[in-house]
Amino acid sequence: MPAFPAVPATPALLVDRDVLDRNIARMADAARTRGVSLRPHAKTHKCVEIARRQIAAGAVGLTVATVSEAEVFADAGFRDLFVAYPLWTDAARGARLRALAAEVRLTVGVDSVEGARALAEHARPGLTVLVEVDSGHHRTGVAPERTGSVAVAAASVGLEVRGVFTFPGHSYGPGQPAVAATDEAAALSRAVAALEATGHDADVISGGSTPTAHLDVPAATELRPGVYVFGDAQQLELGTIDEDAIALTALATVVSARDDTVVLDAGSKVLGADRAPWATGYGRILGAPDARIVALSEHHATVQWPADADRPTLGTRIRVIPNHVCSAVNLADDLTVVAGDTVVDRWPVAARGCNT
Amino acid sequence: MPAFPAVPATPALLVDRDVLDRNIARMADAARTRGVSLRPHAKTHKCVEIARRQIAAGAVGLTVATVSEAEVFADAGFRDLFVAYPLWTDAARGARLRALAAEVRLTVGVDSVEGARALAEHARPGLTVLVEVDSGHHRTGVAPERTGSVAVAAASVGLEVRGVFTFPGHSYGPGQPAVAATDEAAALSRAVAALEATGHDADVISGGSTPTAHLDVPAATELRPGVYVFGDAQQLELGTIDEDAIALTALATVVSARDDTVVLDAGSKVLGADRAPWATGYGRILGAPDARIVALSEHHATVQWPADADRPTLGTRIRVIPNHVCSAVNLADDLTVVAGDTVVDRWPVAARGCNT
Repeated sequence: MPAFPAVPATPALLVDRDVLDRNIARMADAARTRGVSLRPHAKTHKCVEIARRQIAAGAVGLTVATVSEAEVFADAGFRDLFVAYPLWTDAARGARLRALAAEVRLTVGVDSVEGARALAEHARPGLTVLVEVDSGHHRTGVAPERTGSVAVAAASVGLEVRGVFTFPGHSYGPGQPAVAATDEAAALSRAVAALEATGHDADVISGGSTPTAHLDVPAATELRPGVYVFGDAQQLELGTIDEDAIALTALATVVSARDDTVVLDAGSKVLGADRAPWATGYGRILGAPDARIVALSEHHATVQWPADADRPTLGTRIRVIPNHVCSAVNLADDLTVVAGDTVVDRWPVAARGCNT
Repeated sequence: MPAFPAVPATPALLVDRDVLDRNIARMADAARTRGVSLRPHAKTHKCVEIARRQIAAGAVGLTVATVSEAEVFADAGFRDLFVAYPLWTDAARGARLRALAAEVRLTVGVDSVEGARALAEHARPGLTVLVEVDSGHHRTGVAPERTGSVAVAAASVGLEVRGVFTFPGHSYGPGQPAVAATDEAAALSRAVAALEATGHDADVISGGSTPTAHLDVPAATELRPGVYVFGDAQQLELGTIDEDAIALTALATVVSARDDTVVLDAGSKVLGADRAPWATGYGRILGAPDARIVALSEHHATVQWPADADRPTLGTRIRVIPNHVCSAVNLADDLTVVAGDTVVDRWPVAARGCNT
């Protein structure tokens, strides 16, 4: 395993540029083949250089989760942004949304009558919204049949309702992607019918997650996957990608060892503490599929090394695949870009910590 | 519950200054009463203003987890720093340690013969070290009986061995603090005996965690708790503190609601995804002890509201107690300091992201 001597200190997040570019091209091709627009979620990478590559490959715009993420990408010159979140708008957030809408083609999510009213009151009438639909994740969004009543309320306060969106987050489980994609298609179809019954066209029918992005969702006109640019251990363990699609790893050093375990200097403050109930551990080791990260603290990952493999010695540099790459990236100030074993660039995580 | 209108946007981390000061004073008093030195772990707050308050209350110096944390606190004028971690030292890290040791009274951890040799070779002989002892957490550190051999190896390459340290991390479980404190005392005593048998004095015998800080560990001369400054939901659920010792909360807004649940705009990118197997959820709600955070994603906390209480309406601001406050602080650029309902200051998280 290459030690990346040009990286002055571990832990550090490495991005393999060639794998990244291949992931971006593949998703863009898949969207084109299916005839849907691709609007990647920038919360995964928070990185201007990566967003530029996505747009260059054909993405129609970016998805973001927060107004402050939208502000970062607007400042960097991106001109079509969708805040896929049911924002609560007060006077301060309203002023920020007005400033954004003056600069970019802005769309925001809404999932309640009250949320639509607050948006129109504090941001401005005329703002474009999509109604969020719950397709089975049961987080935010309204039941498909309620889409119409939210749309009517939004239109009555002067918002421009352009369609619906959903996030089939229940796709994140073994055997779940196909189920979630079926749910998503059904929910979007019913939501569109409810919207049209109130006299609104659904120009945008937006869905998608990385686990379901390769599945057909006939109702959708737009896909919003995020994780696909980097991949992560969750996607590996869900079986949606192979290790050759892993573009981001945390370079870590073995600092301690005993028996069949080693301790790495990348802990939850580098990898994130995310661990789904079905995960095999707190991430995976690149090139050592049978190693297991059995414990994680802030600056320690305890790795059980397989008995039939040589345990790495102290000082060895190891690449860790985070469970949830969005969390890992949001902990880093910059990404070290490599091509093969060579460091070729450093990209700032421009929207790191942009939660408001 | 106060809405903190002076906080322009949620989510935001609030620090209650009076509670913070009381927590700092209480731990300082407890250490004085027991006749041990207090060297608080600064990885919890990463904040110069809070470290100054700890020193003013009588702390002998600071504990840090990484060299980059040490660099931040050295730059801010702190002069006695212990890196409580078995660092792996290469040329680049060695140069940084030399620069630090020229400026401050620096101590670093060591838990292997190889680690001691790398430290002496790349940093410098004469550097002060403490040998890390495993007292039952089984993460890093050597068995107490092996302390002597590591000390001999360290001394043979010119390092100055001043004692031992341990972290009884297995105190983080229901019913575990007393067990862990007993283990800690036994391990430290045996480690000191092993050290002295090789002709080294144990001037420093350093231990402690927030869950065990109120328990007597007769062998220790120094305590290194971190979390006590803020408290968190883990400490509440372990029963080591009451809610009136919670100094840090995430101010969040209700953005969506259905049935008996509300969704807040503070997710894992604000609270951290930490969840111990024994935790009741992904954090707690201040002032609503029966509410449960049943799901967490990056920008959503799904809260099940108790049936006998009024469910908060959309737009209501709620204060969330993170499960693990160290993770939450490391996600924020600054802390909003409040006294009662009034915002009185804003402190930068100076060492945020300092993982190397």
